[in-house]
Amino acid sequence: MPHTPLDTQNTTVTELMAQISGTGQDRTRGGYTRPVYSTAELDLRAWFIEQATRRGLGVEEDGNGALWAWWDLTSGERSNAVVTGSHLDSVPGGGPFDGPLGVASALVAFDELRLRPLNRTRALAMVVFPEEEGSRFGVACLGSRLMTGAIDRTKALNLRDQDGNTFADIASKNGLDVRRIGPDPALLSRIGAFVELHVEQGLGLGQLDHPVAIGGSILGHGRWKLSISGQGNHAGTTLMRDRRDPMVAAARTITAIRQIALAQPEARATVGRVQPVPGGTNVIASRVDFWLDVRHPDDAVTAAVVQRIHDSAQLLAAEEGCTLELGQESLSPTVAFDAPLTARLGRALPGAPVLDTGAGHDAGVLAGHVPSAMVFVRNPSGISHSPEEHVEDADAELGAAALADALGFLLV
Amino acid sequence: MPHTPLDTQNTTVTELMAQISGTGQDRTRGGYTRPVYSTAELDLRAWFIEQATRRGLGVEEDGNGALWAWWDLTSGERSNAVVTGSHLDSVPGGGPFDGPLGVASALVAFDELRLRPLNRTRALAMVVFPEEEGSRFGVACLGSRLMTGAIDRTKALNLRDQDGNTFADIASKNGLDVRRIGPDPALLSRIGAFVELHVEQGLGLGQLDHPVAIGGSILGHGRWKLSISGQGNHAGTTLMRDRRDPMVAAARTITAIRQIALAQPEARATVGRVQPVPGGTNVIASRVDFWLDVRHPDDAVTAAVVQRIHDSAQLLAAEEGCTLELGQESLSPTVAFDAPLTARLGRALPGAPVLDTGAGHDAGVLAGHVPSAMVFVRNPSGISHSPEEHVEDADAELGAAALADALGFLLV
Repeated sequence: MPHTPLDTQNTTVTELMAQISGTGQDRTRGGYTRPVYSTAELDLRAWFIEQATRRGLGVEEDGNGALWAWWDLTSGERSNAVVTGSHLDSVPGGGPFDGPLGVASALVAFDELRLRPLNRTRALAMVVFPEEEGSRFGVACLGSRLMTGAIDRTKALNLRDQDGNTFADIASKNGLDVRRIGPDPALLSRIGAFVELHVEQGLGLGQLDHPVAIGGSILGHGRWKLSISGQGNHAGTTLMRDRRDPMVAAARTITAIRQIALAQPEARATVGRVQPVPGGTNVIASRVDFWLDVRHPDDAVTAAVVQRIHDSAQLLAAEEGCTLELGQESLSPTVAFDAPLTARLGRALPGAPVLDTGAGHDAGVLAGHVPSAMVFVRNPSGISHSPEEHVEDADAELGAAALADALGFLLV
Repeated sequence: MPHTPLDTQNTTVTELMAQISGTGQDRTRGGYTRPVYSTAELDLRAWFIEQATRRGLGVEEDGNGALWAWWDLTSGERSNAVVTGSHLDSVPGGGPFDGPLGVASALVAFDELRLRPLNRTRALAMVVFPEEEGSRFGVACLGSRLMTGAIDRTKALNLRDQDGNTFADIASKNGLDVRRIGPDPALLSRIGAFVELHVEQGLGLGQLDHPVAIGGSILGHGRWKLSISGQGNHAGTTLMRDRRDPMVAAARTITAIRQIALAQPEARATVGRVQPVPGGTNVIASRVDFWLDVRHPDDAVTAAVVQRIHDSAQLLAAEEGCTLELGQESLSPTVAFDAPLTARLGRALPGAPVLDTGAGHDAGVLAGHVPSAMVFVRNPSGISHSPEEHVEDADAELGAAALADALGFLLV
């Protein structure tokens, strides 16, 4: 292992998180807004490269914009590697921990492992995946989906952000070779096991009074875009009875979505993003675009819920003299993490409960290709994707120690 | 009168409109997006200054950012002036005529008047008011409201656009002296009569089969901002029964607004702008801001409708475990245009019907201070604030000729 500068020794997760606490603060929404390839996310990447380089790791960017920091074996052999990592991008107005906690914990876990007398037989790496949240281009886990081929590269290149920029343009402006964007089976084949540490996004650990858990499965989930089109017009001159207002149809649909989801045990259905076009106060919208997130442990039920919503939206749009389009933006089936790997983590982290999650993760995308697992760290309120997301300092350190234990167990 | 270059003679409204048809096109929404002090609106101002200067008019910017082009008397006397004009800013994705038609028609009307043997006793000017639509800072007719003192200058200076910039900052960046922003009684006192030509924003002329009308009154209207706050959270991990989702409460409120307005004859109530915070697909919003536009000929009824909406929104927010804030952003009472001036326009434009309008205009703001009137030009579909807004070329020329007749009648 290369020379290790002293200044990274004894760095805590709390200290690393403090280093990036000023980056990407959102003064309007509260919390952090760090979309992929924003100034904030680029600053965090630079911070990560510096931290990894200080630790003597060899940092490389893959063809899809993920950053890899390798702690190679003396032989240089990179097959069957143990990999950990997470992401640095955020939802708009997200909390500080969703993503960065897994990266900071990986750095601290590597420091911890460096102090142990390990007879490693496997290479170790950490990775930062881009656009995990899908908050800029609309597809969550875009980096891992591209690497594994879970999204068609042409479809990905043509994704657009809210300003109309394609992913191809933005990736290219940020130094990626567009021809290299897409499946990377060679890199994927080097991963022997992937373990992602993440803040828990529910109340499981809070209720069990335990600091860390092992991931069991990820609920299937998907995103759909609904567009209701009516007749744009002047808010002052158009009589109520003459209106074909897509905002009213969208509002009635959002209400129906709540009722449909409530009627289906374990289903979750959310509309968190709405864009009226043109979006002026004194203008009846000509179109309202809104996005639907649906999750359920049973993929067939997810499909049935979306079908019910589709039928209902179509009816409500027609009642307003409007038309509906509904398109699927992404769909991920329920993922059970690798049972042998999860069992080994159980032995490395005795007493840690196994928890399912309703949130998607890069580990869920990788799980279809390489043995993957997750470690969750307690979030007392369970609130996530919100400035109120929280992890106690002591729990953050326990999480990194658990990750070090898990990685150390897998390395030998 | 100053020298008139030949190249402005015989210019038509259609030609002038064609000169600016490429400026501020909105490829996402369709139509035009020309908010005040955007590149597009600044380009239109430069175009106006060039056109006015070519016509030998003296162009000045007042302290509130309105452009004035004066055709002075030989004496230089500017009291009791006849003034026409409109605005160049647009709603997001608006049509080409709302605003610019009045400016282009003023230029052509001046050309026409130049050819007539007028024994003028009054100065003539045209004006371009800024932020008529209120699409950037949320208050319609901001320029004329500032000049007349209809809005408190401190309140105006602190208005913010969607990027969080204050009006003071943006005005200052665009060359205004912030200390001069506010009431301008000296300038106001020079106006003897104000006549605004505008595309009709309803079907009145289309149904009467007539190209131009004279304005009767402007419906009272106002804007209110509603904010419903709940609990931001993760869309995948939060069970439906645990949610306090402000989007659902906002959706139910928008549905209620439609019902309340439908139940009140002649009332119009619109929600055309909605902003969930943070606005991510996989995030339950923590807050939803939305804007309400209400209009009715009877100001007491407008107030009653808003009160009913307020009560309903409060109830619906509480049912979702959310809280509501409702604040008035602007309120304009019903305005009847100056009866003697309107009667004189009737003599200048024999056969032109008198039509009321549900749309606000700078002429409505000025009407409280100086004799004001309006000329409307036919819009066959009645559709406005939409890319589909339309005026036939022949009607545009008839409108400018009518404006010339009206101004000529007032000048002597």
